[in-house]
Amino acid sequence: MRQSTYLVPTMRDVPADAEAISHQLMLRAGMMRQLASGVYAYLPLAKKAMTKIEAIIREELDGIGAQELTLPALHPAELWQESGRWEDMGDELIRLKDRHNRDFALGATHEEVITTIIKDGITSYKKLPLNVYQIQTKFRDERRPRFGLLRGREFIMKDAYSFHDSEESLHETYWAMHEAYSRIFSRVGLTFRPVIADSGTMGGKDTHEFMALASVGEDTIAYSDGSDYAANLEMASSLAPEPPQSQEYGLLEKKATPDAKTVNDAAAALGVDPDHILKALVVFVDGEGSLLLLRGNDELNEVKALHELGAKEMRMATEEEVVDLFGATPGSIGPVNVNNVPIYADHRIHGMETIACGANETGYHYVHVGPGKDYQATAYKDLRTVKEGDPSPDGQGTLQFAEGIEVGQVFKLGRKYSESLQAKYLDQNGKAQTFLMGCYGIGISRTIAAVIEQHHDENGIVWPVSIAPFLVHLLALNVKNEEQQALAEAIYTDLKQAGIDVLFDDRGERAGVKFKDADLIGLPVRIAVGKRAGEGIVEVKVRKTGEQLELSKEDLVQWVKEFAN
Amino acid sequence: MRQSTYLVPTMRDVPADAEAISHQLMLRAGMMRQLASGVYAYLPLAKKAMTKIEAIIREELDGIGAQELTLPALHPAELWQESGRWEDMGDELIRLKDRHNRDFALGATHEEVITTIIKDGITSYKKLPLNVYQIQTKFRDERRPRFGLLRGREFIMKDAYSFHDSEESLHETYWAMHEAYSRIFSRVGLTFRPVIADSGTMGGKDTHEFMALASVGEDTIAYSDGSDYAANLEMASSLAPEPPQSQEYGLLEKKATPDAKTVNDAAAALGVDPDHILKALVVFVDGEGSLLLLRGNDELNEVKALHELGAKEMRMATEEEVVDLFGATPGSIGPVNVNNVPIYADHRIHGMETIACGANETGYHYVHVGPGKDYQATAYKDLRTVKEGDPSPDGQGTLQFAEGIEVGQVFKLGRKYSESLQAKYLDQNGKAQTFLMGCYGIGISRTIAAVIEQHHDENGIVWPVSIAPFLVHLLALNVKNEEQQALAEAIYTDLKQAGIDVLFDDRGERAGVKFKDADLIGLPVRIAVGKRAGEGIVEVKVRKTGEQLELSKEDLVQWVKEFAN
Repeated sequence: MRQSTYLVPTMRDVPADAEAISHQLMLRAGMMRQLASGVYAYLPLAKKAMTKIEAIIREELDGIGAQELTLPALHPAELWQESGRWEDMGDELIRLKDRHNRDFALGATHEEVITTIIKDGITSYKKLPLNVYQIQTKFRDERRPRFGLLRGREFIMKDAYSFHDSEESLHETYWAMHEAYSRIFSRVGLTFRPVIADSGTMGGKDTHEFMALASVGEDTIAYSDGSDYAANLEMASSLAPEPPQSQEYGLLEKKATPDAKTVNDAAAALGVDPDHILKALVVFVDGEGSLLLLRGNDELNEVKALHELGAKEMRMATEEEVVDLFGATPGSIGPVNVNNVPIYADHRIHGMETIACGANETGYHYVHVGPGKDYQATAYKDLRTVKEGDPSPDGQGTLQFAEGIEVGQVFKLGRKYSESLQAKYLDQNGKAQTFLMGCYGIGISRTIAAVIEQHHDENGIVWPVSIAPFLVHLLALNVKNEEQQALAEAIYTDLKQAGIDVLFDDRGERAGVKFKDADLIGLPVRIAVGKRAGEGIVEVKVRKTGEQLELSKEDLVQWVKEFAN
Repeated sequence: MRQSTYLVPTMRDVPADAEAISHQLMLRAGMMRQLASGVYAYLPLAKKAMTKIEAIIREELDGIGAQELTLPALHPAELWQESGRWEDMGDELIRLKDRHNRDFALGATHEEVITTIIKDGITSYKKLPLNVYQIQTKFRDERRPRFGLLRGREFIMKDAYSFHDSEESLHETYWAMHEAYSRIFSRVGLTFRPVIADSGTMGGKDTHEFMALASVGEDTIAYSDGSDYAANLEMASSLAPEPPQSQEYGLLEKKATPDAKTVNDAAAALGVDPDHILKALVVFVDGEGSLLLLRGNDELNEVKALHELGAKEMRMATEEEVVDLFGATPGSIGPVNVNNVPIYADHRIHGMETIACGANETGYHYVHVGPGKDYQATAYKDLRTVKEGDPSPDGQGTLQFAEGIEVGQVFKLGRKYSESLQAKYLDQNGKAQTFLMGCYGIGISRTIAAVIEQHHDENGIVWPVSIAPFLVHLLALNVKNEEQQALAEAIYTDLKQAGIDVLFDDRGERAGVKFKDADLIGLPVRIAVGKRAGEGIVEVKVRKTGEQLELSKEDLVQWVKEFAN
């Protein structure tokens, strides 16, 4: 492709609101333009990279027997009302009325639609399992679109849905997709982790998010430096400490801690390390008053707590409710002599030898409290938010934190949608059964941005070979020099004939501008035709390593082919 | 692909509202499902055919230097307001509000959006010409969606837009696209004509529609049986007859024709052929009262008349206006002694020797009227709707009519959008100039339907090889027979390894069901593994010709490869 008439409007300055480096670089490299907040046009360079990502996705998914289809973007409201998400999605779901005043949603995701199609199309267990996917534009009216393609309102996704007649079959497809996703993200050049995630309101059970590690991101992930363990911070666990071998505690003693509202106040008043004070939180778990205990320096992780307690919702007690239940204000609460509510203690308390805690008398704390001696926890649970350096829950290595960009997710949906939309098949015995389902997404536009977040330097993008818009950037350094021009044209022809994707900078710009643009656009191989054109010699530079070498025209094609392999 | 778990829900009965054969066959062959009126899901078979069509389009467009990009579907209302189409498109444009109550349109077409992008991205004539395209979903809220994919509310289009600094450059790209379209439609197997079309409200000049000939269609086209001439009926011309050599007329004579309101009434009253009576229509052309003359059997073609008279609008006069201008009621109007309004006569009147017409006196007609003797036409124009059998306007052959499905259109837009959106570039002299534009569309979903309209028989679809979802349909006739099953599996492996696209009917259905489904789905080659499996012999049938032959497993791959070439 000749750059002189190629739509790649590079920019010097980027809008101030482009925070993420991928957003800045894609604007500067002429890959995208904003049309409205969170709504972008993908210019030819971006489209080419996206096409390569899509080809990789299709290859991997077709390879495990998934079938491509295309579902519509206009969804009759009734489907979303049946599933309950017409309400649940709130403002994020884009709604419209047709000329007959009928309500529609714009496809934010396609569980409802595919379930309806399968409900009418598949009647027998014989056609199961089924795994279908599409690559398509999705619409979500994000409250705060940002980071360019990382969080847009219109974006391109690969979404897949699978249908099963048994948990085993769902499990098998779930892991086949998990592995395919790992291959896909490896092939596009991402450093990523499949992390254990919260199934949240999707109503399913198992779910992994594929997180590309990055310096910008909307999620923090915790991963082990000694194993494959990785989880979203909201789901991450650490190894429970062993209880101490000997448990000899001092005598329970009550001390005045006037004005101590917080753990740190109490620690100062008592002269003990805050981590040796119990943080006692009074909460209502599915409506039942409960006492949660954490070490003073730890924070409650509500998502984990809900999972651990098998509960649907949790809220903090008001001060009145605390006083009502414990006879003291929140700063002075503790587990000693409590028997009107269950006591759930974080598993890190297991490892404590001596301890201080509120005395359930406003302005007083106990010291030398012995877990098991002075109070009995109803159960030990994993309730806290992990910290960097915690031991990994699998016992291998310690936890590290990283920012992550969610580029994919695999999800066991179970029967949430097939039940609400009454999608059934007949089993071997001719009995109607509700489908088991899985769903699986990859954010394609987001993946491009994530790749650029991981692959750039101060001069621009550094494309991985697998998804580079072109493999080679051929520069004619001085188009007015006939010798250089002729050699560049000849090389352009050679490369094209060899099937090599090449962008030919044939513009009448100065060499300096061309080098700068080449670094910015970041194609893997740069071939500059300059002063030694008369000898048929050109300069080759590898964008990633900076390696430079001189090659003759005759050796170029061979070298490029070997480089790409 | 194994049919046992392939999503191809074939049907026996089709909904009564599926009028078009393509619609019926796509439903029956399990290729599509309706989600709402005019909104369809493309199931895997349709998706595969569409992917092949898209590959052909990309190859041809990339071949002439067009660049692929992807523009968003959410369009800020301001863009459509600037172009004036926010009003002009009426209910056809789907509108919505985002969570901040801002107005958006759903992309029905992308002139506004691409013009905005180019306005910001291209500043110099040096980057011209530019030709960009996308393959994408479009949304138009049709008043009456029908014929399945032939007229939907959500459909898949390839749309392209070109930008130029001269008429010559626009003309060159226009014809390059015209030729590329011809290659594309030939390659997908369509019998089609590029027809001269009305530029209508799009505001441009030259335009051709690519019409697939069909028995169902929303447009009638007139084409010559002796040349390449073809036009939409609303734009079709016929050859103007030569004026007669000698013009000897009888004496003008007035005759009573009481109660004659129509040409046929008058013909009966006068005892002459209706085609020898002037049909005189009083109209207002851009507000000016005018008399239009046609032969009695001809019909006014308003679209052509507007073009011929260089006018913007035309309306019929009311009875009062007719009486006011001519002193008689509409049934008795004629050109004799008329000098208060211009007289535009259809060119077919040129060839008339004697003639009757209204006498401008209610209830009276003249006979023996001599054009040129008894009245003088202001001008002879091409005003009538052509008829089958008319001489082709290029003098070669006669006109035939056919129903047509518009599968593509090429259009010289001129400066309509670049002017309204103020899109300018700097020319060689550094002067700001408004872009010249062209736009070019292909209805991809509609093309599939058009192909099926042309390629089917009473048993089902008959896919052209170029876009068949699979090349081969392999049937294991009796999966319980181990010999047959083993041979079918071996052939499946052979074909796949040879890179041949094959659908393997491995279902536990009866042979009769499999044969019926194979005919319905209509893949080019059917290979049935049946009774002679023991000898390694299978039966091959060519869907299109019905040709059958027996081949050994060893010869199959070679035969299929040769067939496909």
